Amino acid sequence: MIDRERLQKQLDFTLELDKLKRIERQSYVADGSRHENDSEHSWHLALMAMLFSEYANEKVDVLRVMKMVLIHDAVEIDAGDTYAYDTVGNATKREREEKAADRIFNILPADQAKEMRDLWEEFEAGETPEARYANALDRVQPIMLNDITNGRAWREHGVAAEQVLTRNANTHKGSEVLWEHVQSLVEKNQKLGNLK
Amino acid sequence: MIDRERLQKQLDFTLELDKLKRIERQSYVADGSRHENDSEHSWHLALMAMLFSEYANEKVDVLRVMKMVLIHDAVEIDAGDTYAYDTVGNATKREREEKAADRIFNILPADQAKEMRDLWEEFEAGETPEARYANALDRVQPIMLNDITNGRAWREHGVAAEQVLTRNANTHKGSEVLWEHVQSLVEKNQKLGNLK
Repeated sequence: MIDRERLQKQLDFTLELDKLKRIERQSYVADGSRHENDSEHSWHLALMAMLFSEYANEKVDVLRVMKMVLIHDAVEIDAGDTYAYDTVGNATKREREEKAADRIFNILPADQAKEMRDLWEEFEAGETPEARYANALDRVQPIMLNDITNGRAWREHGVAAEQVLTRNANTHKGSEVLWEHVQSLVEKNQKLGNLK
Repeated sequence: MIDRERLQKQLDFTLELDKLKRIERQSYVADGSRHENDSEHSWHLALMAMLFSEYANEKVDVLRVMKMVLIHDAVEIDAGDTYAYDTVGNATKREREEKAADRIFNILPADQAKEMRDLWEEFEAGETPEARYANALDRVQPIMLNDITNGRAWREHGVAAEQVLTRNANTHKGSEVLWEHVQSLVEKNQKLGNLK
């Protein structure tokens, strides 16, 4: 017998998360035509999780990495996207996002709500091999988009190379290879004047 | 030592697939504000793959399902999105998509190109438990979006209940539970006049 209440909660959550399609990030899609949104970004990270797993410093459970990146921005449905280089916004980010997590993940049946919350907390803490790798992907992807769009979002916000490197301070913990790639892209874009 | 040529191919493929963010589907996002695109759709399916795996008829490898749905529309970068109820388009779909697969997956290093091609062929054939479940998700998700938007895409295209049911002829092979849900949504939307 189907537990209809359980199924309904899962369907409700699926439609609630559709709202991520409407949450704009500062990054542009690769052809520069518009900003990308959270659902597109999450899809891109999940794709990268499978393509680049050989570069994770430690052996990772790719399924857990994918689950993590698919829902890592769910809290932004309530808390909004806080731009990486927005100091004021980042001061209140954690509080806003915890409140959002309390509401959003609890749309699911209790067992799945706990699983999703745990995945999100794991991602945020960045202390397991999976979370370190997932965080590295989350840092690298917008840099790739900035690079391909001639630093468009960086230039609009007057971002400095130092800020990008500081934000990527933990990327090497997830993947030395991706960290090296980040450094080369930052160097290139600094020379081009896309980063201050 | 990093194999730079290999890494570059993986980066190139990651940016090539960014084009999926620009390929519009006929379905609307849940708030009806615009059409969804392939990358959003793929993210939604990957999310559903993890949330609904208990309803797969057979035990499935969720990681393989996720990989499959993340890249199942990659061929549309060249072949375009063929609307489910476009008879003319569907007659040439397979040929156009095979040609696209030849080009797009081969951007990757040979081992990964083969893995992605195999996943896509598996999805298309729909003969493994994973592919049957993935195909069921691919059928159910647009129905959920049609339902929540009061049948918007269906009404625009004058779609009949019978067509949706025919298109879902294999959904029960992936998930009896999701098939039952499809039937209930079709019945409801037929009563509402959203489906002919």
